[in-house]
Amino acid sequence: MKALVLEKQHELNVRDIDLPLELGPDDVRIRIHTVGICGSDVHYYTHGRIGPFVVDQPMVLGHEAAGTVVQVGRNVTHLSEGDRVCMEPGIPDPRSKASRLGLYNVDPAVVFWATPPVHGCLTSEVIHPAAFSYKLPDHVSFGEGALVEPFAIGMQAAVKARIKPGDVAVVIGAGTIGIMTALAALAGGASQVLVSDLMEEKLAIAQGYAGITAVDIRNTPLTDKVAEVTGGWGADVVFEASGSARAYADALASVCPGGALVLVGMPVDPVPFDIVAAQAKEIRIETVFRYANVYERAVNLIASGKVDLKPLISATFPFEKGVEAFERAVRALPGDVKLQITLGDS
Amino acid sequence: MKALVLEKQHELNVRDIDLPLELGPDDVRIRIHTVGICGSDVHYYTHGRIGPFVVDQPMVLGHEAAGTVVQVGRNVTHLSEGDRVCMEPGIPDPRSKASRLGLYNVDPAVVFWATPPVHGCLTSEVIHPAAFSYKLPDHVSFGEGALVEPFAIGMQAAVKARIKPGDVAVVIGAGTIGIMTALAALAGGASQVLVSDLMEEKLAIAQGYAGITAVDIRNTPLTDKVAEVTGGWGADVVFEASGSARAYADALASVCPGGALVLVGMPVDPVPFDIVAAQAKEIRIETVFRYANVYERAVNLIASGKVDLKPLISATFPFEKGVEAFERAVRALPGDVKLQITLGDS
Amino acid sequence: MKALVLEKQHELNVRDIDLPLELGPDDVRIRIHTVGICGSDVHYYTHGRIGPFVVDQPMVLGHEAAGTVVQVGRNVTHLSEGDRVCMEPGIPDPRSKASRLGLYNVDPAVVFWATPPVHGCLTSEVIHPAAFSYKLPDHVSFGEGALVEPFAIGMQAAVKARIKPGDVAVVIGAGTIGIMTALAALAGGASQVLVSDLMEEKLAIAQGYAGITAVDIRNTPLTDKVAEVTGGWGADVVFEASGSARAYADALASVCPGGALVLVGMPVDPVPFDIVAAQAKEIRIETVFRYANVYERAVNLIASGKVDLKPLISATFPFEKGVEAFERAVRALPGDVKLQITLGDS
Amino acid sequence: MKALVLEKQHELNVRDIDLPLELGPDDVRIRIHTVGICGSDVHYYTHGRIGPFVVDQPMVLGHEAAGTVVQVGRNVTHLSEGDRVCMEPGIPDPRSKASRLGLYNVDPAVVFWATPPVHGCLTSEVIHPAAFSYKLPDHVSFGEGALVEPFAIGMQAAVKARIKPGDVAVVIGAGTIGIMTALAALAGGASQVLVSDLMEEKLAIAQGYAGITAVDIRNTPLTDKVAEVTGGWGADVVFEASGSARAYADALASVCPGGALVLVGMPVDPVPFDIVAAQAKEIRIETVFRYANVYERAVNLIASGKVDLKPLISATFPFEKGVEAFERAVRALPGDVKLQITLGDS
Repeated sequence: MKALVLEKQHELNVRDIDLPLELGPDDVRIRIHTVGICGSDVHYYTHGRIGPFVVDQPMVLGHEAAGTVVQVGRNVTHLSEGDRVCMEPGIPDPRSKASRLGLYNVDPAVVFWATPPVHGCLTSEVIHPAAFSYKLPDHVSFGEGALVEPFAIGMQAAVKARIKPGDVAVVIGAGTIGIMTALAALAGGASQVLVSDLMEEKLAIAQGYAGITAVDIRNTPLTDKVAEVTGGWGADVVFEASGSARAYADALASVCPGGALVLVGMPVDPVPFDIVAAQAKEIRIETVFRYANVYERAVNLIASGKVDLKPLISATFPFEKGVEAFERAVRALPGDVKLQITLGDS
Repeated sequence: MKALVLEKQHELNVRDIDLPLELGPDDVRIRIHTVGICGSDVHYYTHGRIGPFVVDQPMVLGHEAAGTVVQVGRNVTHLSEGDRVCMEPGIPDPRSKASRLGLYNVDPAVVFWATPPVHGCLTSEVIHPAAFSYKLPDHVSFGEGALVEPFAIGMQAAVKARIKPGDVAVVIGAGTIGIMTALAALAGGASQVLVSDLMEEKLAIAQGYAGITAVDIRNTPLTDKVAEVTGGWGADVVFEASGSARAYADALASVCPGGALVLVGMPVDPVPFDIVAAQAKEIRIETVFRYANVYERAVNLIASGKVDLKPLISATFPFEKGVEAFERAVRALPGDVKLQITLGDS
Repeated sequence: MKALVLEKQHELNVRDIDLPLELGPDDVRIRIHTVGICGSDVHYYTHGRIGPFVVDQPMVLGHEAAGTVVQVGRNVTHLSEGDRVCMEPGIPDPRSKASRLGLYNVDPAVVFWATPPVHGCLTSEVIHPAAFSYKLPDHVSFGEGALVEPFAIGMQAAVKARIKPGDVAVVIGAGTIGIMTALAALAGGASQVLVSDLMEEKLAIAQGYAGITAVDIRNTPLTDKVAEVTGGWGADVVFEASGSARAYADALASVCPGGALVLVGMPVDPVPFDIVAAQAKEIRIETVFRYANVYERAVNLIASGKVDLKPLISATFPFEKGVEAFERAVRALPGDVKLQITLGDS
Repeated sequence: MKALVLEKQHELNVRDIDLPLELGPDDVRIRIHTVGICGSDVHYYTHGRIGPFVVDQPMVLGHEAAGTVVQVGRNVTHLSEGDRVCMEPGIPDPRSKASRLGLYNVDPAVVFWATPPVHGCLTSEVIHPAAFSYKLPDHVSFGEGALVEPFAIGMQAAVKARIKPGDVAVVIGAGTIGIMTALAALAGGASQVLVSDLMEEKLAIAQGYAGITAVDIRNTPLTDKVAEVTGGWGADVVFEASGSARAYADALASVCPGGALVLVGMPVDPVPFDIVAAQAKEIRIETVFRYANVYERAVNLIASGKVDLKPLISATFPFEKGVEAFERAVRALPGDVKLQITLGDS
């Protein structure tokens, strides 16, 4: 079977590989159509590891995917051959305590695509639990389907925020996840979202959406803009999606008394955090780790037209140019939100 | 001062009346521009009472209003002369236990416009607490401002529902409050809203909004439509906005396991309620009484364009034709959502 | 294998029966020690059915059990041979949507002990998923372990109520579930719990607990007592645990503005429910269906001594007198809270 | 009028002082009986300031008080002459946005006893809003009444934690607020509370309460003890009540997946905070600033006997020895939890 294989740090090939493909009774077999490239894929390529996860044998990359069901296990009832689907890349132990609590994303036993030693989905076909495969309506493209995974992080952030209808929200950082979060917050009830960054191209993409106001913090302090928009009260919800150590003071200064700060960005090291500033407003702080139970709602929002992810697909590469796609991803053009690879007609 | 006065049941006049107009230090004086006619105004006109509230002396009607600040009390800082505002018609005791808890809408001491013996706001000028007067942005019209009051009920319902981004919602009843609730739910995070009714004209108005699907229950059982849309799981949130005794069984059958039922409609008598059906899905039931802390978020959503209330203004009458406006309201044309009366240039 | 078998309505035998006992990899084999008799067991005995569930072939009764692990499946890590355990009697499909959401109790696929055609646990040995078997500390007896099941319903009610520390709670109905609910509410943060009933013996048992005040509604209207205790404000939480159609008006009159009503009792037919009375206080209504994720917390509370269930074991019968135990249960002595059957040394 | 006056840093006198004592219509006049000494009082004495709050003119100290109502304003209905009461020391603007939201503790306009330039309550008589004065039952002493203020902080923390019945909780820090928090958590639903510290005398006081396990972190790593008690899962709720920069890593390591971390302690400077560690468990972090709407529930718990604060009164001084009391407080004996001053028979 063809796959995009990370042989080791800096070495990537499209080549044949043997993968186990036994269909269990609760599984579906999926022919992959489109796979997005995530920062973590790129990081394994350029660094050979992420924290404790080390690529020490060839590994198929990719975890943002959509495709077509070509076979269903005998217990599967909600999917049929021919259904177009997107998939959650993390598979928990359904019997674990975390799963029983509905928090399957924090199950320590989760097996996640393209996290060593687990192979990813940049390959012709995968076997996946039907329970974590979600049907796409006809008018939602494979490209959009493959965007559900990064959008799901924004969705998880928006769910955790417990946005109330009409809230004013702020997203710090206009990277891919920042924009996904802004779109989820907007569709999820915010009346408007301020998105701050210091890169023009990223701000321009955010500004392209009705309801989002881009704030270029090279010119305008975020807190000034927040004060202007909220009459000095502060934003109901602030999403930190930059992971920059300097962002946390701004986040605390921007949120309103009794408001919520949602930590989406992942700073490498501990950051200096002003506990008393948080207490003085008695804010609630939520943290986000991947997602649980949001794929269906994400698909609903895309299908209904409330969220339009299509402008975020910056370029699409055929499978045979997969390595080229990764090379562009490594260059990190500021206007690139998401690069995708397609594997055929599906 | 001119006012639209309900002299007693069935007798309505536009005439002069003496009203106390002393400005307290925390008050603003407001020249009224637009006032909507509410079902309760009509009910006092046609029945002379609502439950224990009896019109036994002349009373000015109206509680859905927008106007212009013409004077501010000495403690008022957030409003200035010339500001265009809409107002919450209920004034609680700020020192009551309910107010301290943030539940000022359920303060038994609330004084509410046009609830005997309290005069309403269908008059040239009112004195109102600044804390319950909300500034309208320039591009929000007085007509929209006067719609904030009924929309606030929908907003309260949407807040109570704790909608999660992408939820599927149902609203039973396409009357004014049903539509307001559907719009609040949609802006507040629902991916789509099914609105059911059996009157064609009302359904047509609902259907006019992107994201709303009208369900004519004369042709299509609501539960069938819900099953179709949700793959048999049920709606995340069901808003009962008809007050019809027969609606509750449908509501329980339409909501998903673990979902929420929000009771907005007010049936005159106790209704038969199937407790075990609610328990079998372990649903949460929320109730709505007016609103608290939603006016600002309502204005935000209107101002941002996420909610368009303008199509709901069915007709506007000049003040001198105010009685005529009430007569049309009494006729209850099925296509009428909201009739408004304007008092001048403001 | 010996079992207490309901042959058909009115016919109960302690006799040998063949039951499948294959141990799966995620299962444990448990030698049963103590089983409590639940109202549903009695109802199957006396009526041969509960709603749609009809006893049309011999069925082992019992679902409130504690015992000792005698064998563990190969994937099981948290339990060992010799561990004393109590068990959740309902086994959901871990892959269902309800399970993924953490709401496994409302999974339509749940298989529940002693619900036709599923055999119960009044037998020497059972196979059970390890994930739904909970270790008992040494100082918690088998009798207490077998009480965890009914106590779990009270726990679920207390969790759903979202009791805040120091809340005043009311429980309507001093039956077994009412008392369990009162104890869970008290341990779960209530400062005091009023328990109302009209049977002296039941009230005496409730009154025996510090923190519980029994209210004999033959002498004292519940609302009077609530008003006295809360200075007229109302109870923060009211648990309806009688299932009596007349109780709901009292419940609504007893709860405070913004308070919570938790529906635990299961009235056979729809009850007249005053929607407007609920709205006027804008209360939240929660419903309870069995329990999910509460067994561990229940065991914690028993183990820590915060909850003492031992006084609720009214009588214990050896297995060979199991039919006698059921006959006493049928008589429903007002002072009987829980009858239990023991199967040996375990 | 006699008062304990901080003339300036390091200079404290019991002397006469003129204080305005006009009774407004919503106020009560209270003869003070008992006042506790808080760390902030001591800090003003020893440092002359706390952050931006500088003692630049003589100021009466004290904000933890109980006394007797001797006169009531004309609008006051829930209190009468002779009632024994405790008082919230912070008075918000009831018309502010924060107050309307029920978050009056974060109202920037709050006026707080013994916070320059506002006088405290270590004086014979005070005027106070009736709405923030709470009646004590006969069997609750003035000493306990004066402890409601520091206990209220623990209560606020326990409310914010949203403890579920049977949770396992950890409190880091066995100072006065740590113990108050542990008692509130225990009464508020926790099955047990681990309290960690490194001072023997403080741990001994905590250990004296049933349900609290003291953890001496000089001998036992907190995380080891938490793992032992929770089978490796982690504590449902961790309260950080030490304000020590080193505590946050322990807090994050002790909390369970999906658990809550409540920040009560107030570190002077920003602390290094491991955002990714918090995200990996997707915890919720709550912050605490004083308290709102907890006094009544605090009194309820004390009155019901669920919380016993009496052992926390380490010593009581008559008013004329008030300066001596402060000198002992400055010495900060490790076994001293709370020192109180009494002003007479009241």
